[in-house]
Amino acid sequence: MIEKTNPNENPNTTPTSDVFHAFDPASGEPIEPGFAESTGTEIATAAKLAARAFDEMVNFPPERRAELLARVAEKMRFHEPEIVDRCVLETGYLAQRVIGEFRRATGQLDLFADLTRRRVWDERQVDPGDPNRELAPGAIVPRPEMRRRLVPVGPVAVFGACNFPLAISVVGNDFVAAIAVGCPVIVKSHPSHPGTCDLLGRIVTDVVAELGFPAGTFSLLHGRRPSTSIALVQHPAIASVGFTGSPVGGRAIAEAALQRPRPIPVFAELGSTNPVFLAPAAVDQDCETIATGFAESLRFGNGHMCTKPGVVVMLDRQSESFIERVTEVMAGQAPLPMLSGSVVEAFDQGVVDLEQNSGVQKLFGPANRTNLANPRNSSEATGPWHRGPHWFGTDAETAIDNQDLHRSGLLHRETFGPVSLLVRCRDEAEMLAVATRFEGSLTTTLHAGEGDETFTSRWLPIAERFAGRIVFNGWPTGMEIGAATQHGGPYPASLDGNSTSVGHASLRRFVRPVCYQNWPAGCPGDPIANN
Amino acid sequence: MIEKTNPNENPNTTPTSDVFHAFDPASGEPIEPGFAESTGTEIATAAKLAARAFDEMVNFPPERRAELLARVAEKMRFHEPEIVDRCVLETGYLAQRVIGEFRRATGQLDLFADLTRRRVWDERQVDPGDPNRELAPGAIVPRPEMRRRLVPVGPVAVFGACNFPLAISVVGNDFVAAIAVGCPVIVKSHPSHPGTCDLLGRIVTDVVAELGFPAGTFSLLHGRRPSTSIALVQHPAIASVGFTGSPVGGRAIAEAALQRPRPIPVFAELGSTNPVFLAPAAVDQDCETIATGFAESLRFGNGHMCTKPGVVVMLDRQSESFIERVTEVMAGQAPLPMLSGSVVEAFDQGVVDLEQNSGVQKLFGPANRTNLANPRNSSEATGPWHRGPHWFGTDAETAIDNQDLHRSGLLHRETFGPVSLLVRCRDEAEMLAVATRFEGSLTTTLHAGEGDETFTSRWLPIAERFAGRIVFNGWPTGMEIGAATQHGGPYPASLDGNSTSVGHASLRRFVRPVCYQNWPAGCPGDPIANN
Repeated sequence: MIEKTNPNENPNTTPTSDVFHAFDPASGEPIEPGFAESTGTEIATAAKLAARAFDEMVNFPPERRAELLARVAEKMRFHEPEIVDRCVLETGYLAQRVIGEFRRATGQLDLFADLTRRRVWDERQVDPGDPNRELAPGAIVPRPEMRRRLVPVGPVAVFGACNFPLAISVVGNDFVAAIAVGCPVIVKSHPSHPGTCDLLGRIVTDVVAELGFPAGTFSLLHGRRPSTSIALVQHPAIASVGFTGSPVGGRAIAEAALQRPRPIPVFAELGSTNPVFLAPAAVDQDCETIATGFAESLRFGNGHMCTKPGVVVMLDRQSESFIERVTEVMAGQAPLPMLSGSVVEAFDQGVVDLEQNSGVQKLFGPANRTNLANPRNSSEATGPWHRGPHWFGTDAETAIDNQDLHRSGLLHRETFGPVSLLVRCRDEAEMLAVATRFEGSLTTTLHAGEGDETFTSRWLPIAERFAGRIVFNGWPTGMEIGAATQHGGPYPASLDGNSTSVGHASLRRFVRPVCYQNWPAGCPGDPIANN
Repeated sequence: MIEKTNPNENPNTTPTSDVFHAFDPASGEPIEPGFAESTGTEIATAAKLAARAFDEMVNFPPERRAELLARVAEKMRFHEPEIVDRCVLETGYLAQRVIGEFRRATGQLDLFADLTRRRVWDERQVDPGDPNRELAPGAIVPRPEMRRRLVPVGPVAVFGACNFPLAISVVGNDFVAAIAVGCPVIVKSHPSHPGTCDLLGRIVTDVVAELGFPAGTFSLLHGRRPSTSIALVQHPAIASVGFTGSPVGGRAIAEAALQRPRPIPVFAELGSTNPVFLAPAAVDQDCETIATGFAESLRFGNGHMCTKPGVVVMLDRQSESFIERVTEVMAGQAPLPMLSGSVVEAFDQGVVDLEQNSGVQKLFGPANRTNLANPRNSSEATGPWHRGPHWFGTDAETAIDNQDLHRSGLLHRETFGPVSLLVRCRDEAEMLAVATRFEGSLTTTLHAGEGDETFTSRWLPIAERFAGRIVFNGWPTGMEIGAATQHGGPYPASLDGNSTSVGHASLRRFVRPVCYQNWPAGCPGDPIANN
C-alpha cells in the first residue's frame, strides 16, 4: 500500500494556511468544507484522554469492546448513502468500488467483534509447577508455575491509507485490531479524504458516548503536515503505531518512534510491486483468460491497490498473443480519475521514467503525452486527473540491471495507478533469475498449468523469500480477511515482515505477553480469569 | 540485561590496536591469547556464507537442525571442564554459578532440539475455500482456500550479553531460536569473554562440519569496536538481529538497522530494575524470610543479573526490622569480582551518584570509599575489581521526583552489581503511586500475605503495564525456560516489548508468516507438507 507524498506534506514546503481542503479528482477542484490542521494542544489532549481511557478500558470485559465494534458497523450501515457519496466525491472511485470497500469495512468490524468475543488473540500458556523437581541428584529446586497471556499495550496511533478511506482508515484494519484487544485509538485522517474520515469519526465518537466508553477511547485528528504526525507518534502516552503509506513516510515515522525517550514499535505497511509469473504450460493452455484477468486486476480501483500486479514475468516467445489480448482489453478501458493531484504527479513521473528508459518499450498507452507538464490539457483525459491504462515491456537483463537503482529499480518501483511492466525472458531459468531479484512484496502470483510442475517446485522457495502471500492461478487484488491471511512481507512490503496488518493475526500487533509466576489462582484480579 | 559500555567501545575513542585481550576480574590483569578485531572482509565473508547456507538449509528437515542443537550440547558436556575454567577465568564468577549456567545452556540446546522436532513455532492455519460463497444475493464470489505457515527470515546476527557467556551468547538463547527455525547465525563475541566464546564457537563449527551443514550455518566474529557491530548489522545478507546489552548499544544497533536500504527488525533486550513490592501483611507475617531472600537474590551472580531486584518498595513503618535483617546477611557477604573494568567503573559511578543524592541514605556499604577514583587501592576490595553489597534507602517522594531525570532517575537507573535501593512509603497508596512510575521492566515481584488481597488487586493492573514477568512471593533472579516464559517488556526492558528473548516463544522472532492462496495440495513443494 503506497501513499504518494502530497506536495503539501513535503517537509521542505511549509503550508501557509492551517486550513486545507479535499479535492474532487473528477474535476481537480477543492471541496468544502475546509479542515483545520490539528494543533499541538489538540494532539496532547487526545493522547492524554487516550491514556485515561486505557486505564478504564482495562477493566471492561471483551464483550463491551465487541459491542463497540459491532455498533459502529451498524451505524455505518444506517449512514451508508452519505458515507459512500462523500467517499466517491473525495476519491473519484466508481460507486461500485466504494460500496465494495464499505462492505469490507463493515464486515471487518463485525468479524473483529466476533474475534473479540472469542478472545482469539490471547495465546494463553500454562507451564505447571513441580515442587519436587530434582535438578541434580538430591538437589530439589521446585519449578514454579508459569502462566502467560497477552495484554493490550496502550493507546495506538493510526495513519490510514490514501486508497482505502473505509477499510484502512478511521474504522479500518488498525482500528478494529486495537479496539479488539483493548487499546484506545487516535487516528490521523488522510488529507486527501478528510470529509469521509470526519463522517466515520463522528460515528465512532457517537458510539463511544452511547455505550459509555471513556471519551479518549477514540479521537480523530486532521492534518497534512509531517510535524503533526511526528508530534502524535512522539507523545509519551502513545504505545504503538499502525501506519499504511509510503516507504519514505513509514521510515520517518519509525525514526521518530525510535528517537523517543521510550521507543515504541511501528507496524508499517509500505510498498509492493506484486510480481506475477506466468509458467509456460499455463500460457499455452489458456493465454486469453490469463491476459484478461491481468488487465482486469490492473484496472481494479484504477491501479490504486497495494496488491496491484505491477510486474508480469513470462517467456518472450509466448508474449505476443498475451500482449495482443491484454492491449485489446486495455483499449476498452476508459480513463478514470486518480486519487489526488500528488498521485497523478507521481504516476506521470513514473510513466515518463519508463518512456525515457532505453531498455523499455511502450506496449500500451497514449502515443502522445506531450502535455504531461500540464495534465489539465492532456488529450487522453476527460478530466485533469483522469488516466487510462499504461503498459510497458522490457527484457530480463534490463530488469535485473536496473536493480542498481535499488528502490527505484524497475522491479521495485511501485507507481500507484494503472501502469505495469512486462518482463520477457529467454527461458525458465531466466524467469527464476528475475524472481530472485525481488526483495520484499506483499504478494506474488504464479500461473501454472499441467507440465509446469518442475518450474513450480523451483519457483516456490524463491517466492517464499520475498512475499507475504503467494497466489496460485489467481490475481493478487482482492484479499480475504481470515485466520490465515498475511498482509505484510520483508521491506518494502512492511517495515516489520513478522507481522500482518490485515486478518486475525493483525491483533497480535497491539498486545504484549505477560507471564505470571506462581500467581495464586484464587487471588482477586486473577489474571487467568476469563477476561 | 545490561552491558556497560566498555571504554574501548566508546565511539569517541579509537582503539589503537587491532588485537584485544580479556581481563581476569580477580586480578584485573589481561589474559592470553589476544583476539583480532574482525575485518570488513571477514564480516562480508561470514555474511555471504550465511546467505549461501540459508539457501541450502531451507531444504533440511527440522530433524537435522534438532540434531545440530543436541550435538552441540553433547560436545559441550564433553568439554565442560575446559569451558567452565575459561569462563571462570574471564568472568570472575564462582565456579558454582558458571556450572549452573552451563547446565542452563546445554538444557536450552536440548529443549530447543526437542521444540524443533515438534515444530512448535509453526502456527499453521487453514481457512477453507468456498466455491459457492454468496457475497450478496445472487452474487457468487468463490472464497479461495488460504493456508498460513511461518518461514525462517534468513541469517541472524547475534550480540551476546556480558553477564551470561554460556546461556546468552554463542550457543545461547538467540542461537537456539534461530537454528531451530532454520536461520544461519553469525555471533559477534562479547569482548570481555572472547576466549569462552572461541571455545564454544569451535564446538559449533566442528558440529556444523561433522553433520554436513553448510559452512555458513554458523560464524563467530570477534571485536570490541562499535563499527564492527554496525558493519555486521548493515550487511545486506543479514535478515534479523538478536541483541542483549545496554539501552545505548541497543538503540545504536536499531538505528543502524533502520538506516539500511532494506531495514530489518532488531530484537533487543536492554535494561531493567525489577522492582519488588512488599505488601504489609506479608512483611508482618514473615519479615525475616523475605529479607534473607532479598539479600540472596541481590547477591546472586554478584548482582550481574538482568533480573536483579534493583528496587524494593515497602512501608516505612515496617522497614526497620527488614533493614536490620538484610544488613545482617549483607555483612556476611564478602566482596566478589565484578565482570570487567568498565562494569566496575559504572558500578562505582552509580554508587557515588546515590551517595551524593541528598534524598538518599546509605543503608549498607563501606563507610569510606575515598579511593574510588583508583579502585585498585580501594580498602574494601580483595582485588581491584572486587565489590561487596551496597544498599541505599529513600522515601517515595524523592524516588518519584527523581523521575525528572528519566532513564537515569532513581527508579529506572540500572547499575550492574550488588547495589539496590529501598523506597520507603507512608502508606499503601504511596506504594501504588510509586508502582505507576515504572516504565518498563523485565520483571516485577509482589510479596503478599493473608490480608493483602485489596492491595494485590490494585497492584496487579499497574504491574501488568510495565512488566514482562510478574513474580508472586518469590524472587526475580533465576528464570524458568518454558512455553509460558516471557523475558522482555516495554522499553527499556526490550526495544520491542511484544516479543520474548527467552523461552519457547523466542522462536517467533526469527520467522515470518507466509500465506498460500489456492495452492494445490499435491503440488511439488507443497508448503503444507510436514517440513
